[in-house]
Amino acid sequence: MDKTILPCVIGLGYVGLPVFTRLNKVYKTVGYDVNAERITSLKKKIDLNNEIKKKDLKLANKSVITKNKSHLKSCNFYIVTVPTPLINKKIPDLRFLQNAIKLISKFLNKDDFIVIESTVYPGVTKLYAKQILERNSGLKLNKDFFIGYSPERINPGDKRHKVQNIKKILAIETNSKKAFKRFTNVYSKITKKIIISNSIEDAETAKVIENIQRDLNIALMNDIFLFSNKMGLNFKNVVRLARSKWNFLKFNPGLVGGHCLPVDPYYLSHLAKKKKIKLETVLAGRSVNEKMKKVIYEMIVKKISYIRKLKKNCKTLIVGVTYKDNVPDLRNSYPLSIYLKLKKRFSKVFAYDYICATKDQKRFNILNKVNSINKFDLIVFLVKHNKNLQILKLAKKNNVKVLDPFNFY
Amino acid sequence: MDKTILPCVIGLGYVGLPVFTRLNKVYKTVGYDVNAERITSLKKKIDLNNEIKKKDLKLANKSVITKNKSHLKSCNFYIVTVPTPLINKKIPDLRFLQNAIKLISKFLNKDDFIVIESTVYPGVTKLYAKQILERNSGLKLNKDFFIGYSPERINPGDKRHKVQNIKKILAIETNSKKAFKRFTNVYSKITKKIIISNSIEDAETAKVIENIQRDLNIALMNDIFLFSNKMGLNFKNVVRLARSKWNFLKFNPGLVGGHCLPVDPYYLSHLAKKKKIKLETVLAGRSVNEKMKKVIYEMIVKKISYIRKLKKNCKTLIVGVTYKDNVPDLRNSYPLSIYLKLKKRFSKVFAYDYICATKDQKRFNILNKVNSINKFDLIVFLVKHNKNLQILKLAKKNNVKVLDPFNFY
Repeated sequence: MDKTILPCVIGLGYVGLPVFTRLNKVYKTVGYDVNAERITSLKKKIDLNNEIKKKDLKLANKSVITKNKSHLKSCNFYIVTVPTPLINKKIPDLRFLQNAIKLISKFLNKDDFIVIESTVYPGVTKLYAKQILERNSGLKLNKDFFIGYSPERINPGDKRHKVQNIKKILAIETNSKKAFKRFTNVYSKITKKIIISNSIEDAETAKVIENIQRDLNIALMNDIFLFSNKMGLNFKNVVRLARSKWNFLKFNPGLVGGHCLPVDPYYLSHLAKKKKIKLETVLAGRSVNEKMKKVIYEMIVKKISYIRKLKKNCKTLIVGVTYKDNVPDLRNSYPLSIYLKLKKRFSKVFAYDYICATKDQKRFNILNKVNSINKFDLIVFLVKHNKNLQILKLAKKNNVKVLDPFNFY
Repeated sequence: MDKTILPCVIGLGYVGLPVFTRLNKVYKTVGYDVNAERITSLKKKIDLNNEIKKKDLKLANKSVITKNKSHLKSCNFYIVTVPTPLINKKIPDLRFLQNAIKLISKFLNKDDFIVIESTVYPGVTKLYAKQILERNSGLKLNKDFFIGYSPERINPGDKRHKVQNIKKILAIETNSKKAFKRFTNVYSKITKKIIISNSIEDAETAKVIENIQRDLNIALMNDIFLFSNKMGLNFKNVVRLARSKWNFLKFNPGLVGGHCLPVDPYYLSHLAKKKKIKLETVLAGRSVNEKMKKVIYEMIVKKISYIRKLKKNCKTLIVGVTYKDNVPDLRNSYPLSIYLKLKKRFSKVFAYDYICATKDQKRFNILNKVNSINKFDLIVFLVKHNKNLQILKLAKKNNVKVLDPFNFY
């Protein structure tokens, strides 16, 4: 139990990289990822997600960033930060997690520690520890090795709530004081304040309900947004009035994409379905939030069609195509999919996004800058990146028609 | 337009009485209610709802509290604060409102003002102004008389958010500056800060979504509460963990009764249905919140049955039967209906509630005090009135079994 702590972070994406950079400051840390491109750019001290600064990617304490599995051999504190997405948009896809645990099981030694940070449904962490780790290693949980669960709370694009200055749950079920100390010792290097849970399942549940609550509240605002539009009410005014009540919660309607909100409700509902437990609210927001993609697409189509009646064509510019404000990520982005769908239907549909990666800009034909605004007939705002305001100003100055479906401005 | 302001508040319940007491301080105000008992006790300066203090019920400026319609004749600024409940738990019941408007229409004169405070769905205020008021009086809206909408924000039992120190919406659609001034003049005497809306429908919508948001969020917590119970998770711990996230919203599971949360979602959904607009989230919380009554009832039945296996009988005490903490109101109270249902099924089921009115205590056989706690075999906490804590302490001291389904303590 006294051997030096040698951490390994498996998965260097939005979740793993900040954890790695924190541990790198203190321990000889292995940062492992299967994605060769990601490893190459991280080695050049470039985080294409724009989350971690160059100086924080400087390796210390003989740490390494690698796609080479053999580096895991020397480690004794594994942190798993791989994605847990959906299969067919509905069913939990635990394959990355399974592969990561299998990989660890090959190198697992006595007194090793594992912490899972990936979002799962209640029961997964211990099931995997039992089934995969015990079987493949021949070691026993809570006797030979220890497992914890510390759900990630990464909020891409949020400069304030970084892993080092938030409260972070750490669920530990061992009775060993030494093991407990080792868990908290390492996690105190990662985060500002550890919130201990003596139940892993409780922590797994807490994680998913955080995002379900958010998803549901945005869905309610989307519902009211759609209702207001159909009834000819001024949604912006309705919300302003409601917000004048002391306890009205500030949520905005929008295109809910990304890897958490559209995903986590299905994790909980998947388990509930298996256990035949009826959950009435958990998925209630999903269909509204899904529907918004189609609604906004049709709103733009209507506008383009109207302009095309007046003049032969309509040169349209979609401003912002990532899944969220000020984030370069295009995975599960509704604005991107709206843009691509419009492009198929109409000629002269363009997109502008200064934040998404050069590689993605090339791949999807996304403009990096707008040279002359007045060659467009319609500007559509789908994501509120900070600098998009400049485009709005230009559009207004040049009398170009603007569609701002969510009243960003 | 220059005649003195002579207000009349129609309906002196939770909503109307505080409005009346504010206006009574400034104007010769008529407080009108059809309920003879209510008028009698208010004349004795007693508010059985425990909301308004004796000293604030002292009449000034020649104001009157009356059930006599003829007093309305001399008034020129009508404020309607009658209930708008449901028929068969689903359909908006606008009959009280209709009657109040009809009553006003009989006395309506040129340059009179009407403000509706009752919760309605978008469109009702103007529909009634047109249909009932114009037809019955022969006067014209916005020419001869003026109508506004100012949704009530009364929160029974809440000592902090009183009408005089909250922000209050006032929706006015007239172009007349004089009329606008008269509306705001009166309302500035009622509330701390007026939030002006130039659309009555927007204000009607804002009101219902405030309560829908709350209803839905409590429903989500009820869903997670039920899920946790069925999965053997520690709900209290799950919530503690989730709340450690910076943006997790603090809602508690519970028995959602009363006149607002179980009602308002149906107001909006009623209109949406008529207009064939699909609202996916608005009613999603209703069935969970409705279900809780049955769930908690069965939880208690199970406990009583278990105790009865060990000893011949189980003397059960239900602590708190009003619809909400620290409020005497029994209307649409789930704890009351659980108590009455248990009473039918088992002998020796008692209830204790020190807050509900003496009349109600007599009517439903509710104890006003608990003399000896140790004659009971089971104490069940359904409402968290402040002094109920004392019962818990006594129960623990005397080793009486306690069922606290919502973890109040």
